[in-house]
Amino acid sequence: MVFILKPNVEKKKIEKFISSWEQKGFSTILSVGTEHTAVCLIGNTAAIDMDHAVQTSDIVLYGKRITEQYKAVNRTVHEDDTIIRMGDISIGEGFFTVISGPCSVESEEQIVKIAKSVKQSGAKILRGGAFKPRTSPYAFQGKQAEGLRMLYAAKQETGLPVVSEIMNQTQLDLFEDVDIAQIGARNMQNFDLLKEVGKLKKPVLLKRGLANTIDELLMSAEYIVSAGNDQVILCERGIRTFETMTRNTLDLSAVVLLKQKTHLPVIVDPSHASGIRSLVPPLAKAALAVGADGLMVETHNDPAQALCDGAQSLDLEQFRHLMDELKIRATVEKKEM
Amino acid sequence: MVFILKPNVEKKKIEKFISSWEQKGFSTILSVGTEHTAVCLIGNTAAIDMDHAVQTSDIVLYGKRITEQYKAVNRTVHEDDTIIRMGDISIGEGFFTVISGPCSVESEEQIVKIAKSVKQSGAKILRGGAFKPRTSPYAFQGKQAEGLRMLYAAKQETGLPVVSEIMNQTQLDLFEDVDIAQIGARNMQNFDLLKEVGKLKKPVLLKRGLANTIDELLMSAEYIVSAGNDQVILCERGIRTFETMTRNTLDLSAVVLLKQKTHLPVIVDPSHASGIRSLVPPLAKAALAVGADGLMVETHNDPAQALCDGAQSLDLEQFRHLMDELKIRATVEKKEM
Amino acid sequence: MVFILKPNVEKKKIEKFISSWEQKGFSTILSVGTEHTAVCLIGNTAAIDMDHAVQTSDIVLYGKRITEQYKAVNRTVHEDDTIIRMGDISIGEGFFTVISGPCSVESEEQIVKIAKSVKQSGAKILRGGAFKPRTSPYAFQGKQAEGLRMLYAAKQETGLPVVSEIMNQTQLDLFEDVDIAQIGARNMQNFDLLKEVGKLKKPVLLKRGLANTIDELLMSAEYIVSAGNDQVILCERGIRTFETMTRNTLDLSAVVLLKQKTHLPVIVDPSHASGIRSLVPPLAKAALAVGADGLMVETHNDPAQALCDGAQSLDLEQFRHLMDELKIRATVEKKEM
Amino acid sequence: MVFILKPNVEKKKIEKFISSWEQKGFSTILSVGTEHTAVCLIGNTAAIDMDHAVQTSDIVLYGKRITEQYKAVNRTVHEDDTIIRMGDISIGEGFFTVISGPCSVESEEQIVKIAKSVKQSGAKILRGGAFKPRTSPYAFQGKQAEGLRMLYAAKQETGLPVVSEIMNQTQLDLFEDVDIAQIGARNMQNFDLLKEVGKLKKPVLLKRGLANTIDELLMSAEYIVSAGNDQVILCERGIRTFETMTRNTLDLSAVVLLKQKTHLPVIVDPSHASGIRSLVPPLAKAALAVGADGLMVETHNDPAQALCDGAQSLDLEQFRHLMDELKIRATVEKKEM
Repeated sequence: MVFILKPNVEKKKIEKFISSWEQKGFSTILSVGTEHTAVCLIGNTAAIDMDHAVQTSDIVLYGKRITEQYKAVNRTVHEDDTIIRMGDISIGEGFFTVISGPCSVESEEQIVKIAKSVKQSGAKILRGGAFKPRTSPYAFQGKQAEGLRMLYAAKQETGLPVVSEIMNQTQLDLFEDVDIAQIGARNMQNFDLLKEVGKLKKPVLLKRGLANTIDELLMSAEYIVSAGNDQVILCERGIRTFETMTRNTLDLSAVVLLKQKTHLPVIVDPSHASGIRSLVPPLAKAALAVGADGLMVETHNDPAQALCDGAQSLDLEQFRHLMDELKIRATVEKKEM
Repeated sequence: MVFILKPNVEKKKIEKFISSWEQKGFSTILSVGTEHTAVCLIGNTAAIDMDHAVQTSDIVLYGKRITEQYKAVNRTVHEDDTIIRMGDISIGEGFFTVISGPCSVESEEQIVKIAKSVKQSGAKILRGGAFKPRTSPYAFQGKQAEGLRMLYAAKQETGLPVVSEIMNQTQLDLFEDVDIAQIGARNMQNFDLLKEVGKLKKPVLLKRGLANTIDELLMSAEYIVSAGNDQVILCERGIRTFETMTRNTLDLSAVVLLKQKTHLPVIVDPSHASGIRSLVPPLAKAALAVGADGLMVETHNDPAQALCDGAQSLDLEQFRHLMDELKIRATVEKKEM
Repeated sequence: MVFILKPNVEKKKIEKFISSWEQKGFSTILSVGTEHTAVCLIGNTAAIDMDHAVQTSDIVLYGKRITEQYKAVNRTVHEDDTIIRMGDISIGEGFFTVISGPCSVESEEQIVKIAKSVKQSGAKILRGGAFKPRTSPYAFQGKQAEGLRMLYAAKQETGLPVVSEIMNQTQLDLFEDVDIAQIGARNMQNFDLLKEVGKLKKPVLLKRGLANTIDELLMSAEYIVSAGNDQVILCERGIRTFETMTRNTLDLSAVVLLKQKTHLPVIVDPSHASGIRSLVPPLAKAALAVGADGLMVETHNDPAQALCDGAQSLDLEQFRHLMDELKIRATVEKKEM
Repeated sequence: MVFILKPNVEKKKIEKFISSWEQKGFSTILSVGTEHTAVCLIGNTAAIDMDHAVQTSDIVLYGKRITEQYKAVNRTVHEDDTIIRMGDISIGEGFFTVISGPCSVESEEQIVKIAKSVKQSGAKILRGGAFKPRTSPYAFQGKQAEGLRMLYAAKQETGLPVVSEIMNQTQLDLFEDVDIAQIGARNMQNFDLLKEVGKLKKPVLLKRGLANTIDELLMSAEYIVSAGNDQVILCERGIRTFETMTRNTLDLSAVVLLKQKTHLPVIVDPSHASGIRSLVPPLAKAALAVGADGLMVETHNDPAQALCDGAQSLDLEQFRHLMDELKIRATVEKKEM
C-alpha cells in the first residue's frame, strides 16, 4: 500500500506518520519525487482499512494498493524517472548513454587504446571484465585484480568512469574504484550478493538472467534498492530460448515493459544477446528506437585475437560508425547522447 | 551445389545444361538475377566433382557448395533481393510497407471504415481475418466466406489489396480474389498446405510458428518456392518462451538473420508478438530500425468491442499517429513508405 | 456449468431438460457414466442462477461451475475413465497398451516382418507412417497411398489394428481402413482437420504440439469430442526447450496432470521425445511408472538403413527385450499389458 | 586426451609420466579405477601426436581423444561409477538413496519430528533449508545460523546425516557440521562458490540450474572436481519451459544422459520440479524407473502451515506411503534402498 502525501508536508509530520506504521510492524519506503512524496508500506497490508487510514491522517492525499511484489522500484510508488548522475554523465529517461569496451581487460596497453577510441566515438562509460564467469574451469578466467588495476589506468588516462563485473562479496574492497558495479546474468538471483551491493554508494548495473522473467528482474532490483541503494540500472541482454542461431534471444518488449513498471533506467546489451557481430548494429538501433536509455556494446581493438567473445565484438572503426548512426537517430528520438 | 553462369549465356545452352543434370537424377532450380544467373542442383551432390563440372562446361563461371538445406530461398543461390510488386506497391528491400486492418472482419461497415482510415494513414495493404484459428471450439471462428465477401467490398471501395489467412487447401477457391494468401503461425509446418499455395500465382505471407526456428521457417518457405511460387513474404511474429508478461517474445534478431540468409522480404507483426497495445508502437519502430521490410499491425475502429484480439489492436487514431512517427524514421533509414 | 442428474432418470425427461437449455441459446454435452449422467452447458453461463436452476428441476441432483474452457473432455463433467475398445484391445486406465512399428512404411515385406515381430513381443497395435511431414521438401515424404496399402497388408497378415498419420482432410477416404487416425504434433492446432476427424467413427490419436501447453492439448481434444467423436487418445511426445542434447524434452508431469484433468487415455512416445535409441527403454519404463496408459515406440528391422528416424528406432530384438521388462513392471503397477 | 595405463604400473613411473606432461604446460587429472588407471591432459592437446606419445611410453596401454570439455567428470576418463559413502550410506549406481525433510527448518521441534518420521519411513539423509534463496526480499529468508543449529540437533537425535544449501562462500565455517553442502539451482553457475566447495572434504549436492543445459551442469561439476573434491552428486530438479501448469518441467531424459556421460551419482528432486504435491509420488516412481540413484523429496509435518513450499510438500504419512511403494519397485530395478 502506498500513501501519496499532500504537497509541502513538514518533514517532522512525515517522520511521525512513518514511525506510527513501523510501530504496527510494517516496513516503510519513503519516496520523494518532484511532484509528490509517497510512503509505501511493506508487510501484510491486506488487513488495513485504507479509506480509514487516509481519512484519519491530515497529511495523506490518497492511498493506493500495490498488487506487485516490488515496491521500491515500482513506478506506482515513485512516478519520477530515476536519472543516475556521474559527473556530467546522466543515465535515464531523455538520455542515450553508451557503455563500451572489451569483454575482458587483456593488458594496460589494450584497455587504454580501446578507452581512448570509444571515448572519441562518443561512449560515456568504459567497460572491462577483470573477473570472468566462464562455463569451463579451463577457460580464461580474466586478469582478476591485475585486470582491475589496468582498468583504473584507462580510467585515469581518459577520465571515463568504469564498470566491471563483481562475482562475489569477498571482492568488494577490490571494487572500490570501480564506478559502476556490474551484477552478471548468472548472478541475478545471487541474493546475498544483491544485499551487499545494496549497501554500496555507487550505481549497480543489474543484468537480466538467462531464464529470468521481467518480474524476477524487478524483484532482484528490489533487493538492492530496499537495502539502501537506489542507483540501479537494469540491463536486458537476451534470454535463453529454443532458437540456437543466436546466442540468446534479445527481448526488446521487456525494455518497454520495464520502462512502464519501474522508474529505473533500462539499457540493452546487443553483444551478449546475439553473440554475432553483424547483428550488433541493427539491434543497437532497435534498442534506441524501442525506448532504451542506453547500450552496453563490446568492442575490441583486434576481435580476431580477443581472449573472449571476439565473435560478438565490434572493432573500433565499426563502433565509431555505429555511434555516428546512433547519433542521427537519437536526435529523432529526442534523446541526448 | 550452385553453378554461377557466365554473363549472357544463350537460353538454349542453359536449358541443355539443366537437362544434363536432370538426366543424372538431380532436381534443379534456375535463378535469374540482375547480376548473374545461377543453376542450383538438389539431390545427393556430395559425390559430384565440382571442379571437373566447372571445367568441362563452357557456360559456368564458378561453382559453390551450399551447406544449408534451403536452396531456392538461399541468398547464395539468388543474391538479388526479391521485391514483390502489386500494382504500384512494392514489398522488399528499400521499402517499408505497412499492412493493417482488424484481427477479424466483423461487418462490411466495419471493414470499409477501417480500410478507408488506414489507407489515409499510409497503410498499403488491408488485412482482415475471415477464417480464424482459435484455441477453443467455442470461441468466435470468424465470419468465414461471408467475411471474405466483406473484405472484397472494402478492397473495391478503397483499392487496397487484401490479405487474409487460409486455413486449409479446400478453401483455395474462396481465396481467388484475395491478393496475398496468409499462412498462419500454427500452419507454418502444414506442409500439404504449403505445397498447395506453392502453386498459386499470388504472394504468400508466411508467419513464423510459435516454436519454430529460423531454419525451419526458411525450409517452409522452400516448400512454397520449390513448388513454383517465388513470391513469399516472411513474417516474424514472436516466439513462445518462458516469459509470460507478453503473449510471445518478439525475436528481432531473426529479422536481421533472415535478411542475411534469404532474398525474400521480411516483415514484423508487433501486435501478435506482444499482445499488448502499448507495446505495438515502440516495437514497430524497432522493427523499422532493425531492417524489416514492413509491418502487419492490427487496427480496429473500437478495440474494446472487438470480437477478437482487442487488447492488442490500435484504434484508428493511434495507428495514424504511429504511421506519422514511422514516416519520419523511414526517411532516416532510407526506406520508401 | 454441469448438472449432475439424479439416478435412473427417464430418457425423455433428460431430452426435455436439454432442449429447454438449447432453446435459451446454450449448446449441451450429454455425458452418460456408470455412476451418474451429466449435462454440460456451453455458452455464457455466468448469468445463470445455478441454485435456482437446480431447485426448479426435478431431475437434477446438483450443479457445478466449470472454470476450464474444456468441457466435454473435462473429468468434472465425465468422471469415469474413457476406455477405448477395439476388438479385444483396450486403451485407457488399467491397461498398458503398446503401439509399435516403423516411422515410415518402406515396403510390404518390411512392414509385414516388423508387424509379426512386434505382435509376438506383445504390441497390440501397429504403427506405420505413409504420409510423412518433413521439415525439408527434398526429404523422403513417405510412400503415401502405396504405403497405406502395404500397411493394410500387414494388418491382414497379423490381425493387428493399424494407426497412421493423416496430414489433411482431403485424405480422409484413403484412411477408411486405418483403425486409428493419428494427428501429428505439427497439426495439433490444425483446427479444420480436428473438426473433420471429429466426424469419424474411429479413435483419433492426438499428439501434443512441440510448443503447446497442456491446456491447449485439451482444447484441441475438445474440438474433436465436441464434433461428435469421443474416442480420443492423447499422446505426450516431448516439448521444445532450450536443451539440445535430446530432440525434445519429454514432459512426464504432463501425463499425470492430463490423467487428473481429463477422462481420456494418455500415452507416451519416448522415441520422438528423445530422438536417441538408448533413451527409449528407460523413458518407456518411466512412462509406465508415472501412470501412462500405453506407449508408441518406433521399431525397425534394420534401423541403420531406415528411411527416416533410424537413430531413435529400436531393432526388433531390443523391442522384445523392452517388452519383457515392461511386462514385469506392469504387474507391479497393476496394469494389463 | 586421456591415456589409459597398463595394469599394475609402479606409482613412481606414473608420477614421472605426469610430471613430464606438466612440464610441457598441461594440467593433468589422475583417475584410479578398479579396472584401470587413467591420466587425462588438460590444455591444448590438439597438437599432440597421440600415437607417438603412446608408442614412446612403456606404461601407456592406449590413448583416446576426448571431445567434451569436461574431463574429470567424464566417464571416458573414469569408467567406474563413483559411489559416495557416508558411514553405512551409499549414493551411486546400485542404490536408491532418498533424502527428505522440510523446505525450511522452522523449529527444533519441527525438524526433529520430521527427521524421526522420515528415518522410520526409510529416508537415509535429512534435508533442511536454513538459508533460503527467495525471489522477494520481503519473503521469509530462512532461520539462518539458528536453523543450522536446529538441523544439527535433529542429526544428533536421529543419526541421519544432513544436507543444507550454502548460499555464498562466507558461510563455509557455519557449514562445518553439515554432511552434504547443497549448491542451489540459482547458484549452479556461481563459479567462485563452486571453486570453494571444491576444496571441501565432504560431498556436494549440485542442482541443475533452471535454464542450464546438461553440458553446463557437467561443466559446473567439473569446477568442483577439478578443484579437488570428487564427491559430487548431481540433481535434476526441473527446467524452465513455456509450460506454466507445473513450476518447472522435470527432464528425466537428462538423468539417463548424465548417467551415460559421467560416473557421478544423479538424483531427482520431484518436489521443486513440479511444485504440486500430487505429482511428487508418480514422478518419484518415474525417477526410479528411469535409472536415478536417489531422490530429494520435501516433507513437512503440516504442509498447510509450512513457511515455504507447502504446496509441494508431502505430509509424513504420504511420504511413508510413497516409500513403501518405492521399496517394491526398487527390488524390481535391483537397487538397494
